[in-house]
Amino acid sequence: MPKYRVGIVGATGYTGSELVRLLAHHPDVTIEFVTSESQQGKNITDVHPHLLDAVDIRITSVKDILADEVDLVFLALPHGVSMNFVKEHGTDKFITIDLSGDFRFSSRGIYEEWYGTQHIAPSYMEEAVYGLPELFRDKIRSARLVANPGCYPTSAILALAPLIKHGFINPTSIIVDSKSGVTGAGAKPKPGLHFPNVFGNFSAYSLLRHRHTPEIESMLQNYTGYSTEVLFTPHLLPIDRGILTTTYSTPKKAVSKDSVQELFYSIYEKEHFVRVFDDPPSVKNIRGSNYCDIFATYDERTNKIITVSTIDNLMKGAAGQAVQNMNIIFGLIEATGLRHIPLNP
Amino acid sequence: MPKYRVGIVGATGYTGSELVRLLAHHPDVTIEFVTSESQQGKNITDVHPHLLDAVDIRITSVKDILADEVDLVFLALPHGVSMNFVKEHGTDKFITIDLSGDFRFSSRGIYEEWYGTQHIAPSYMEEAVYGLPELFRDKIRSARLVANPGCYPTSAILALAPLIKHGFINPTSIIVDSKSGVTGAGAKPKPGLHFPNVFGNFSAYSLLRHRHTPEIESMLQNYTGYSTEVLFTPHLLPIDRGILTTTYSTPKKAVSKDSVQELFYSIYEKEHFVRVFDDPPSVKNIRGSNYCDIFATYDERTNKIITVSTIDNLMKGAAGQAVQNMNIIFGLIEATGLRHIPLNP
Amino acid sequence: MPKYRVGIVGATGYTGSELVRLLAHHPDVTIEFVTSESQQGKNITDVHPHLLDAVDIRITSVKDILADEVDLVFLALPHGVSMNFVKEHGTDKFITIDLSGDFRFSSRGIYEEWYGTQHIAPSYMEEAVYGLPELFRDKIRSARLVANPGCYPTSAILALAPLIKHGFINPTSIIVDSKSGVTGAGAKPKPGLHFPNVFGNFSAYSLLRHRHTPEIESMLQNYTGYSTEVLFTPHLLPIDRGILTTTYSTPKKAVSKDSVQELFYSIYEKEHFVRVFDDPPSVKNIRGSNYCDIFATYDERTNKIITVSTIDNLMKGAAGQAVQNMNIIFGLIEATGLRHIPLNP
Amino acid sequence: MPKYRVGIVGATGYTGSELVRLLAHHPDVTIEFVTSESQQGKNITDVHPHLLDAVDIRITSVKDILADEVDLVFLALPHGVSMNFVKEHGTDKFITIDLSGDFRFSSRGIYEEWYGTQHIAPSYMEEAVYGLPELFRDKIRSARLVANPGCYPTSAILALAPLIKHGFINPTSIIVDSKSGVTGAGAKPKPGLHFPNVFGNFSAYSLLRHRHTPEIESMLQNYTGYSTEVLFTPHLLPIDRGILTTTYSTPKKAVSKDSVQELFYSIYEKEHFVRVFDDPPSVKNIRGSNYCDIFATYDERTNKIITVSTIDNLMKGAAGQAVQNMNIIFGLIEATGLRHIPLNP
Repeated sequence: MPKYRVGIVGATGYTGSELVRLLAHHPDVTIEFVTSESQQGKNITDVHPHLLDAVDIRITSVKDILADEVDLVFLALPHGVSMNFVKEHGTDKFITIDLSGDFRFSSRGIYEEWYGTQHIAPSYMEEAVYGLPELFRDKIRSARLVANPGCYPTSAILALAPLIKHGFINPTSIIVDSKSGVTGAGAKPKPGLHFPNVFGNFSAYSLLRHRHTPEIESMLQNYTGYSTEVLFTPHLLPIDRGILTTTYSTPKKAVSKDSVQELFYSIYEKEHFVRVFDDPPSVKNIRGSNYCDIFATYDERTNKIITVSTIDNLMKGAAGQAVQNMNIIFGLIEATGLRHIPLNP
Repeated sequence: MPKYRVGIVGATGYTGSELVRLLAHHPDVTIEFVTSESQQGKNITDVHPHLLDAVDIRITSVKDILADEVDLVFLALPHGVSMNFVKEHGTDKFITIDLSGDFRFSSRGIYEEWYGTQHIAPSYMEEAVYGLPELFRDKIRSARLVANPGCYPTSAILALAPLIKHGFINPTSIIVDSKSGVTGAGAKPKPGLHFPNVFGNFSAYSLLRHRHTPEIESMLQNYTGYSTEVLFTPHLLPIDRGILTTTYSTPKKAVSKDSVQELFYSIYEKEHFVRVFDDPPSVKNIRGSNYCDIFATYDERTNKIITVSTIDNLMKGAAGQAVQNMNIIFGLIEATGLRHIPLNP
Repeated sequence: MPKYRVGIVGATGYTGSELVRLLAHHPDVTIEFVTSESQQGKNITDVHPHLLDAVDIRITSVKDILADEVDLVFLALPHGVSMNFVKEHGTDKFITIDLSGDFRFSSRGIYEEWYGTQHIAPSYMEEAVYGLPELFRDKIRSARLVANPGCYPTSAILALAPLIKHGFINPTSIIVDSKSGVTGAGAKPKPGLHFPNVFGNFSAYSLLRHRHTPEIESMLQNYTGYSTEVLFTPHLLPIDRGILTTTYSTPKKAVSKDSVQELFYSIYEKEHFVRVFDDPPSVKNIRGSNYCDIFATYDERTNKIITVSTIDNLMKGAAGQAVQNMNIIFGLIEATGLRHIPLNP
Repeated sequence: MPKYRVGIVGATGYTGSELVRLLAHHPDVTIEFVTSESQQGKNITDVHPHLLDAVDIRITSVKDILADEVDLVFLALPHGVSMNFVKEHGTDKFITIDLSGDFRFSSRGIYEEWYGTQHIAPSYMEEAVYGLPELFRDKIRSARLVANPGCYPTSAILALAPLIKHGFINPTSIIVDSKSGVTGAGAKPKPGLHFPNVFGNFSAYSLLRHRHTPEIESMLQNYTGYSTEVLFTPHLLPIDRGILTTTYSTPKKAVSKDSVQELFYSIYEKEHFVRVFDDPPSVKNIRGSNYCDIFATYDERTNKIITVSTIDNLMKGAAGQAVQNMNIIFGLIEATGLRHIPLNP
C-alpha cells in the first residue's frame, strides 16, 4: 500500500524528535526528510541517540527540500520562523502542520501584540485551521495549513469548552492555573532551565503576559461564540513532561457535581484521546501518550466549578496532536500510530 | 546564663527532627527530652543519622516526662493525638506549642466537621492562640497554649491578610491554588507517597474538603473582621520541601500594580521573616529557611489581584514558626536560632 | 488468526502492570486473566488508571484460573511465592515465565543460602531455563519453565559475558557497580522508598550480600564455562526507571580500546535489543524500551577494561524481557509487541 | 573584637554564592568585597535572591580591589583563570585560597597534561598547600596560598588515605566509582545539564580522562609516600548537591571487617567534619553541611575492601572546606561558622 510522504522541518528540538519517534512506526507514513540548519549532514540518531535502530535518516537543510517530495510537512520551528517557511512555500504544494504559534490567530493584531513581533505572512492567518480535533475536526479534514495548538491551551480549552458551550459558566471571569514540565520551554539551555536551578524548585512565570492567554480566549470564543476572558498563570514544574491545569469559574445556571461530571462524560464519550475521570487526574497517568485526562466538579460552598486536566505537553500538547491532525487530513483512523499506553510508573 | 528548658513530644517525624535541628544550636535553649513511643530507648541520632555530632539524646516515652523539667513543650504529634496530651497536662505547668491542627479553631464545631473526629479537650480551644507572629504577635507573647499554624494556611494567610485588612479585595470570592512538597504529608510511607508514584508526577488532591480551608478562612476573619470565603485546592509537588501558593481575588476598590506592591512592602517592612519581591518568588530561594517570600500584582485586563507566596513547609510552615513563637514567648529576639540562609542551589 | 492466550498472576505490582501494558497491544496474544488476591473483583484500570481505554479486564483470584484457558502464564510474584504456584500447577498444562528469583539457580543450595528461605519446589530448578535470550536463546525456544532474569544481572551479564567468553578478562576479580531506579524495589511503600527519603538522595545498599550476586556469577559461569567471581554493589538512584551498571575487570590477554569495542559490535550485531555505542550510554536513552545500551573501553594507564550498560529495569530487566522470551517460545518474531522507542526526553 | 577581612573573587557561580552564604554569618570575618566582571554594579542579592536580608553588598570588578583591604581572598574562578590572579597579585599582600585546580599540583607537568593548557604561574605551584585539613593541617596553618581540593578528590582521598597510609591496601590497583550532583559541573547552562536532559537520567562521563584522577593519585602519594594508581569513573546524578564515592581495593595484609572499620574510627575520631558509620552513608544526611560521612568494610568472599563516602560538593567539596582552611590559617576554632546541621529531609 502506498504510504503518505511527510517531512519534518526542525528536527533537533524536543518536538522534532518526538515527531520522529511517532512517525517512525506509523504504518501509513514515511518520513522523507528531516531538516536542521545546525545539524545538517549528521544522522538523526547522532543528535537523538535514543532513536537508534528505529530510524536511519540523514539530516538535510530546509533549503534542499523538494516540494513534490512530500504530501505534508510538519514545522517544528520557533515562533516567528514558521511564517517565513509558509510565506515561501505557500499552501498549494503540500499540506503544512505548524507547531509554532504563528498561525493560531485569525488576524495579526493579537499576534503582534502578544508575540511582540511583526507577522510577515498575515494572508495565511485566516486560512489556517486551529488543530484541536475535538473542537474543530470538520475544518481540519480539509485544511491545507493547520495551526497546531499550544500545550497550555490544549489542556485549558478541552476543560473549559464544554462548560462555556453548554452555558454552565460565566465566560468572562475564568482563572486558569497551569503547571508545566520543563520540556515545554524547549531544548535550548538557559539559566532558568539549568538543572540545579529547577531541581527541588517551583515557581510562577510570565504572569499576566503569557502568549497562551489570547490563544485560550480566542479559541474558546471561536468555538462557543461567547466572548471569553481568562486570567492565565503558568508555573514551572520540576519534571520533564506533563502539564496539569486547574481552572476555576462561576456557574451561570444551577449546577451540581453530577450535572458537571455528566456533561464531560457525554461530550467526550466518543473521543479516543480524552478520558474523563471521577477523581482528579495525575500527570504520570498520561506520560508519553496522547491522552488528555479530565476531571470536573462543583463546589457548592463557594459556588465554583473546578476542572483539572492533564496532558503530555510533547504529545497531546505538540507532536501527538500534530500526528492526530495529520491522520484526520489523510482520512486515516484518528488514533493510527498514536495508541501509546502511558508510561507509568 | 541559664537557658530555657524545652521538650519535644513526637520526635520521629519530619517536624520533630526539624525541631531538633533548630533547637540543637539555639543559644538560649536546651532540649531536656524528646519522646517517641515507637523509638524509645534509641538515641535520636539512630533514628535521624543526619543529626549525628549535633545532638546526643536518648529518646524517652511521653509517659516518663516530668512536668517540672521544662518551661515549654513542642507537640509534634498527629491531629487528634495532641489534644490528649493537652487534656492530660493542662497549660499551667509548662507552655505548649502544638504543631497539629487540634487547637487552631476557637470552637469545636468547625474542627469536628472538617477533621471528622470528636474534640476531647474543647475547653482549651478558646485559650489557644494561633501562632502566626506577623498577625498575632501580641497575643502570642502571653500565650500558654499556641496552635502553630498549618503549612498551607501560613503561605495563604500572609498573602491575603493585608489585602483583606486594608480593603483591597472582596473577601468572599478568593481562589487559593497551592502546591506542596511531599514532606507536608508526613514521614509515614503510603502508596501515594511512594517514590515511583510521585517522581515525574503532579496532581491535585483533597479537592473541596482539605482541612486547611476552614483554617485559612477563620484566621483571615479573626484578623480582619471580614467574613471570608476561600476555595482552596492543594496539589502535590514532586519535591521534598516547599509550598508555593497562588491566590486570585477581585478588588473592591480602585487599585494598581503599584498600590498593591506598595501595600505589601509597607506591611512587611519590619518583619524579619517576610520578604517582599518585585518578581514571583521561587521555592528554592527559601529552602531550609524560615522566610516567606511574597509577590503581589494586579491584572488590569481581568481586574484581578494575584499573589504568589512561598515557604519551606517544615520551617515557616511548621518547626521554624514554632521556634519563632517560642522566642516571642520567652522574650528573646525573634530570629534567634532561625537565621538560616536558604540553601540554594 | 488465532491468538495465543496468556495469563498474568500478580497484576498489581509494577511488573504486572508493565506486562499488561505490553500485552494489551501485542498482535498475537490475548490476556485471558490477570490475578491479584488483594484487588480481585476490581477492573485492572481501577488499580492502574493509566491503562484505561487500553484494556478492560476484571481481576480474578489465582484460585479461579483454569489451566486449559491459557498457553502461557507470567508469574509477577515475589520471591518465595512463585515456587508455590509452580509446585501446584507443574509445567505440563501451560508454559510458565517466572519473573521472581525462585528458579534462576539450578540447585537449591545457592538459592537457600542467599535468599534465606527453603526452596519447596527444587525439582523444577533444573528444568527451568534462564531467560536471557542473547545468551540462551536456543534453550528458551523449548522451555516449559523460564526463569526470567533479575534486572541487575541482565545489565551486568550482557556486559561481561562477551569479555569472559572470548578470553578478554580474568573472570575472578570483577567489580560490578550498579545504580538502579526505585521501581526495581517494588511497589510496596517502605520508609527507605518514601518520596522525601529518596528525593535528592543517593546511597549504596545490601553491600556484599545482594541476591543478584550469585545470579550474575552462576549465569556467567554457565554461559562461559569459566568459574566467575563478582563483587556486586547496588546503589539506589532517585529516578523511577532505569539501571546503569559500570564494571571493572582486568584483561588476561593483550587488548586495546579498539579490540574491546570491536568485540561488542560483532557479538551483538544481530541482536534487536542490544545497541553498542562508542560513547557511554544514558539511562534516558532506553526509558520505556526493551533496549540494553552498552559501551566498553580499555584503560591502558591502569590496565582495566570498563563497561557501562543500561536498561529499563521494568522492560529489559523484567516485563519486556519476559515478553521477548514468550515471543521466542511461541516462534514469533522476537521483537513483536516490543518495538517501543525510548521516551526521551 | 576586630574581624578578619576577606574578599571573594568570582561571586556569581555556585561556589561564590555558597561562600557568601557561609561568610555572611561567620562571627570573625567581614566580607570586604565580592567581584564579578559580568555582574558588577548589581547587588549580590540581585544575582542570588536567596541571600536577601542576609547580606547587602555591591558587586565590584576584580580590577578595583585594593590589596590592603583584605587579609584573605577566595578565588571562585574557573581553572586557568585563577593563575592569572595569583601571578598578578602574588602571595605577599594577602593570603589566597584558590578553589580552582590551578595550584593543586606541585609541578606543571601533570597539570598541563590533564588540563590541556599551559600554566602561566608555575613558580607558585610548589608554594601552594593542598587544603585538605584532615591530611595536611599543619602545612595549611602557615600557608599563603591554599589549593582548595576538588570535590571528587575530597570524597575519595578521605576514604583511601587511611587504608594506604596504614598498609591495608595495595595502592596501585584502586577503583574509584563516583557519582555527583549537577552543581559540581557549575552554573553555566549547557545541553548536557539542561533540566530535561538530566531529569530521570543517569550516565558516566569523562571516562579515563577526568582531571581529578591525577589529583587523587598525587595527593594520596604525597600523604602516604606510596606510589598510587587509581581508575576513576565519574557519573552524573540527577540531584543538585552531593557526591557519593564507592572505592574498591585489594588488601595487602590480613584484614577483617572489624579491623577496617576500627581503622576509620580511630583515624577520624577527633575530626569535626568526618563522621564514620557502621552502615553505608546517604547523600541527604550531609546535604548543606561540611561533613564527610564514611563507611568501610571488607568482603571476605572476593577479598576486597570497599569504602563508601559522601560529601556536599559545594560544602566539604568546595566552599565549606575553603572556610575550614581559612579558620585554620586565622587560628580560629576549625568549625567556626561551619556548624550547619545537614538538611534532611
